[in-house]
Amino acid sequence: MLELRLVQGSLLKKVLEAIKELVTDANFDCSGTGFSLQAMDSSHVALVALLLRSEGFEHYRCDRNLSMGMNLGNMAKMLRCAGNDDIITIKADDGSDTVTFMFESPNQDKIADFEMKLMDIDSEHLGIPDSEYQAIVRMPSSEFSRICKDLSSIGDTVIISVTKEGVKFSTAGDIGTANIVCRQNTTVDKPEQSTIIEMQEPVSLTFALRYMNSFTKASPLSDQVTISLSSELPVVVEYKIGEMGYIRFYLAPKIEEDEEMKA
Amino acid sequence: MLELRLVQGSLLKKVLEAIKELVTDANFDCSGTGFSLQAMDSSHVALVALLLRSEGFEHYRCDRNLSMGMNLGNMAKMLRCAGNDDIITIKADDGSDTVTFMFESPNQDKIADFEMKLMDIDSEHLGIPDSEYQAIVRMPSSEFSRICKDLSSIGDTVIISVTKEGVKFSTAGDIGTANIVCRQNTTVDKPEQSTIIEMQEPVSLTFALRYMNSFTKASPLSDQVTISLSSELPVVVEYKIGEMGYIRFYLAPKIEEDEEMKA
Amino acid sequence: MLELRLVQGSLLKKVLEAIKELVTDANFDCSGTGFSLQAMDSSHVALVALLLRSEGFEHYRCDRNLSMGMNLGNMAKMLRCAGNDDIITIKADDGSDTVTFMFESPNQDKIADFEMKLMDIDSEHLGIPDSEYQAIVRMPSSEFSRICKDLSSIGDTVIISVTKEGVKFSTAGDIGTANIVCRQNTTVDKPEQSTIIEMQEPVSLTFALRYMNSFTKASPLSDQVTISLSSELPVVVEYKIGEMGYIRFYLAPKIEEDEEMKA
Repeated sequence: MLELRLVQGSLLKKVLEAIKELVTDANFDCSGTGFSLQAMDSSHVALVALLLRSEGFEHYRCDRNLSMGMNLGNMAKMLRCAGNDDIITIKADDGSDTVTFMFESPNQDKIADFEMKLMDIDSEHLGIPDSEYQAIVRMPSSEFSRICKDLSSIGDTVIISVTKEGVKFSTAGDIGTANIVCRQNTTVDKPEQSTIIEMQEPVSLTFALRYMNSFTKASPLSDQVTISLSSELPVVVEYKIGEMGYIRFYLAPKIEEDEEMKA
Repeated sequence: MLELRLVQGSLLKKVLEAIKELVTDANFDCSGTGFSLQAMDSSHVALVALLLRSEGFEHYRCDRNLSMGMNLGNMAKMLRCAGNDDIITIKADDGSDTVTFMFESPNQDKIADFEMKLMDIDSEHLGIPDSEYQAIVRMPSSEFSRICKDLSSIGDTVIISVTKEGVKFSTAGDIGTANIVCRQNTTVDKPEQSTIIEMQEPVSLTFALRYMNSFTKASPLSDQVTISLSSELPVVVEYKIGEMGYIRFYLAPKIEEDEEMKA
Repeated sequence: MLELRLVQGSLLKKVLEAIKELVTDANFDCSGTGFSLQAMDSSHVALVALLLRSEGFEHYRCDRNLSMGMNLGNMAKMLRCAGNDDIITIKADDGSDTVTFMFESPNQDKIADFEMKLMDIDSEHLGIPDSEYQAIVRMPSSEFSRICKDLSSIGDTVIISVTKEGVKFSTAGDIGTANIVCRQNTTVDKPEQSTIIEMQEPVSLTFALRYMNSFTKASPLSDQVTISLSSELPVVVEYKIGEMGYIRFYLAPKIEEDEEMKA
């Protein structure tokens, strides 16, 4: 039996809005550690990893490890029926082929339960090794989102280049070229508006803007985004989910473009 | 000659927005009592009844009973040109085939008059008998609207079940099932947020969500909606229009589903 | 070499949004006087004239007169990437076939430069003589915009008639007719809400609403619009751009309709 009670139910709503565009069907894995998901996007280019730690739930009961296959579009439809202040409880009986989402309004006047059929989904869990990154950029998530959107109106790919002074986002297309530089900035009044660069060595990598734009759908989850870059590794775009977990998006750099740049 | 001056013109704007989707053409009836309309929706399933009592108008002159056939889409187009704070006057000369809507801005700086051709519309006026209902639910109109919208993302019909504890809205569809229970609640600070259930006996009826969603277009007219239910009668969904009248929507329950439920 | 630094960059953003629908490609002319544009709309019916005087720029360097052909849709795409509080600098080297737009965020944390290819555009500069107008109406730009939009839901053309008492906007279409009268009004608390009529003699002219609606895209630039009318001349619809210039739209009256009216 599984029963997970999340007081700040809006977090789960935002998680689904963040990943439903990228991933169609996926297994949610429940264990003593937490509620997690790992899935490739439908074109098998990007990887999403979600973790909601058990400590973040008001009540967390998971008698045995359980993998629940869900259609994320349908799950998002149901979660959209939860109010933003609702408490959300996820329930499943052992061996059942359904999952129930219960929504309680703050004053308990309105109680909803939505039952959804589970699916059998083949999936392999990839081990993602902890890596050292050449550069880690932490910046306002709204700024990163705006930059990806703006560059998309000019080109299809973004070159992210990190130096000590700042991070540069560049693109080129039929109508022209664009460069946007964000300077390191740690002295702002509000820490959520800071831009912090930890750099071992300069790095410059090219990515498809289409995916970057998908990742930024997670911006409502966190004021800050962390972008970890290394020449030989997929970039990691991470959004913290309060104190209880994260969504991480992994995307391999475009090698061809990379080689052109070096040529 | 007809001349009806409505200081709170936004009410008439909202009335048109509430019914124009459901009803294409209809006769507005003017008499000493008030300005009223009764019409079936275009698929002859739902009935709309509107009443604006003469006392609610600042000035109400109606020399003889008059029935004016109007295209509600065109009428809505014209009323959308009135400001939300405008005074609206409806004028028609005896025997004329046009009606004039006059809009005055609050400071009288801007005066508009829109003239619209009337239509000949065959219609029979149904007598709607006053009935006793097994259950009457009064609840926030925004809540009812939200529930109908939410359930529409899951299924096509809603089962409304009333017990002493509360009212339950249920649906089922390909992706799963949903139940939303609103509890009786009379102790809230703001009376417009209360949910009040008057029940003679439990009742459970099935309706097409498509129509319910159309009815909720009237929500801007009133903070509260009243839903009157009886096994053998069409449901009445009523929105009060200030102190001066109401819009009532009538919809027959889906019998087949009903029988399935009893079977 | 050209370098124009505009502290209130949002003005340039609004200028592009105001004209990009009407004009596809146009030459921007830079001289010691200022940054200007004159262009016909793509159907060669309306004329746009823009002037941003050199004094309005924080820094204005224009070594020699320069005419830069730009695709306004692409230019608008780039300017949309500037924040509303950004400082915008326009740069071009002599003989270069590109122009660069630089956007600096107020705190200098984010610097973007967008480079766009210039185009060769044939254009003739029309001399527009200063004229005396029979009537000049100054009114809130939001009001004028609302009226043009409202009348478009009824008809295709607007008759603008000015008398001492006020200005009347009329239209007619399949569903009926509409007249909107705005009275002269100089005694309002806020001067930007005043309607002022300077009239030598009454005038009544007919225009295509489609163009009027395009002109009102400039409303965000100014609280007030000035409409100058004479029987034998194109109407001038003018929006001031702060203290530094203006956008003027010229449109010839519809003669046929005019004659019908006089007949």
